[in-house]
Amino acid sequence: MRSVLRSRSELPVAVFDSGLGGLTVVQEMRRQLPQEAIVYLGDSARVPYGTRSPATVVRYASACARFLLEQDPKLLVVACNTASAVALPVLNDTLSLPVLGVISAGARAALARTKIGRIGVVGTAGTINSGAYPREISAIDSTVQVFQMPAPLFVPLAEEGWVEGEVPLIAAQRYLAPLVEQGVDVILLGCTHYPLLRRSIEQALARLGSTAEIVDSATAMAARVGRALDSHGLVRPAAAEVSGALHCFVTDAPANFSQVASRFLGEPLDRVEVVDIS
Amino acid sequence: MRSVLRSRSELPVAVFDSGLGGLTVVQEMRRQLPQEAIVYLGDSARVPYGTRSPATVVRYASACARFLLEQDPKLLVVACNTASAVALPVLNDTLSLPVLGVISAGARAALARTKIGRIGVVGTAGTINSGAYPREISAIDSTVQVFQMPAPLFVPLAEEGWVEGEVPLIAAQRYLAPLVEQGVDVILLGCTHYPLLRRSIEQALARLGSTAEIVDSATAMAARVGRALDSHGLVRPAAAEVSGALHCFVTDAPANFSQVASRFLGEPLDRVEVVDIS
Repeated sequence: MRSVLRSRSELPVAVFDSGLGGLTVVQEMRRQLPQEAIVYLGDSARVPYGTRSPATVVRYASACARFLLEQDPKLLVVACNTASAVALPVLNDTLSLPVLGVISAGARAALARTKIGRIGVVGTAGTINSGAYPREISAIDSTVQVFQMPAPLFVPLAEEGWVEGEVPLIAAQRYLAPLVEQGVDVILLGCTHYPLLRRSIEQALARLGSTAEIVDSATAMAARVGRALDSHGLVRPAAAEVSGALHCFVTDAPANFSQVASRFLGEPLDRVEVVDIS
Repeated sequence: MRSVLRSRSELPVAVFDSGLGGLTVVQEMRRQLPQEAIVYLGDSARVPYGTRSPATVVRYASACARFLLEQDPKLLVVACNTASAVALPVLNDTLSLPVLGVISAGARAALARTKIGRIGVVGTAGTINSGAYPREISAIDSTVQVFQMPAPLFVPLAEEGWVEGEVPLIAAQRYLAPLVEQGVDVILLGCTHYPLLRRSIEQALARLGSTAEIVDSATAMAARVGRALDSHGLVRPAAAEVSGALHCFVTDAPANFSQVASRFLGEPLDRVEVVDIS
């Protein structure tokens, strides 16, 4: 009923991630597209996706999408790099609304920045093993070389809040050294958790003697959502003067949940519901 | 049918953990109780439990137990500290076979070692927040003081294979320093993943100027299984000359699975089935 009575442009944008990392994308969307209502689902009961098999990631991503469709969204954003890398084709084939993934947005942003055609990508094991970034980048410009490195400890470091100091710095040096050796001039953060470690990653690059530019996909993703809404005629009218609501669902909320969530979102999170989607 | 035709003592011992950490308990059981058949379930599709809420851990642990009961075991071992800490009462109330958890085994082993009655415990956030170790230890000897510290990065470090070098050493120093300051003479490793980091933990203690003894619950747990089988008259007869089979189930098997699994088990794993228990 709701979608019949309301203009489709007033419907929310749905966003999901394996956990809270996708809130870095939400933060950028709220900055760039303040009038849009957002429904977010973090699958915190089954985070992380990055260490799981492709079949399991597809199963989990499909369950997330199924839940969000009940919220009647106008567009679905897969803010999880691993789910984008592995499950986007399935979601695109089975859903009847526009579905955008962070891989494509990040790939284009990295391509726009490289001057010498050598891009380094860090991500979870799932994202890196899928080969989604090299595939996406090569499809646009086959002369660009992509070097990859899985950085699995970055997710627990970001969630633990160990984002500065010796441990993340040494971990970042270890992960980035092989990419620096390849002479990349862009480091693409291929996981929505990684922007929290940005300062340590910058310091590690400096210690390794690299001047590579860091590109994160959250900013690129938000810009791409804006363009997609525009091209589908789905931008919420500015006449809807109030800024868009943010409604968050999670599949589990452990004790330190709101603290971690506000670290990712950059603002306090006042409306969160725990749901069981398994 | 099977249980009617066979003696109950010939049935397997069932063991579950959130992932592969429980294989450290299995390794000890195979050393101490070589004739026993073992059925292991690692809930690798939903690992780690240590960061999840108690309600979610109870739900996951119940699903694991349900699956293992189909294997007709004589005894159930909860090898996951978080599940033992949070879900053992529920499992004991709902299941009609003996259920043993690692918390009690670890607590008793630590008590046997402390000379000055000051025990330090490291574990996941879930285990530490549950207060299960201090509760268990106080119930046996209320004069003993227990100091706790969550060490959430130890699990991803063990799974990543970063068990030696600067990163685990600095992390261990940071986690252990507050316990050393309390003058503990025993450090109880309250997570089945942690024995893999034992050398780094020892080095960290040395750097912190502590001579505390490290106690891990895997060894204690295997001994307790042996005593429980004995007291229930369920020891598999030595006449059953072949050594017990090990049958492993996991809920997900990512690419590097067998490598990680054999690191935990200390032997190659030749028989593994992936099952969906959600």
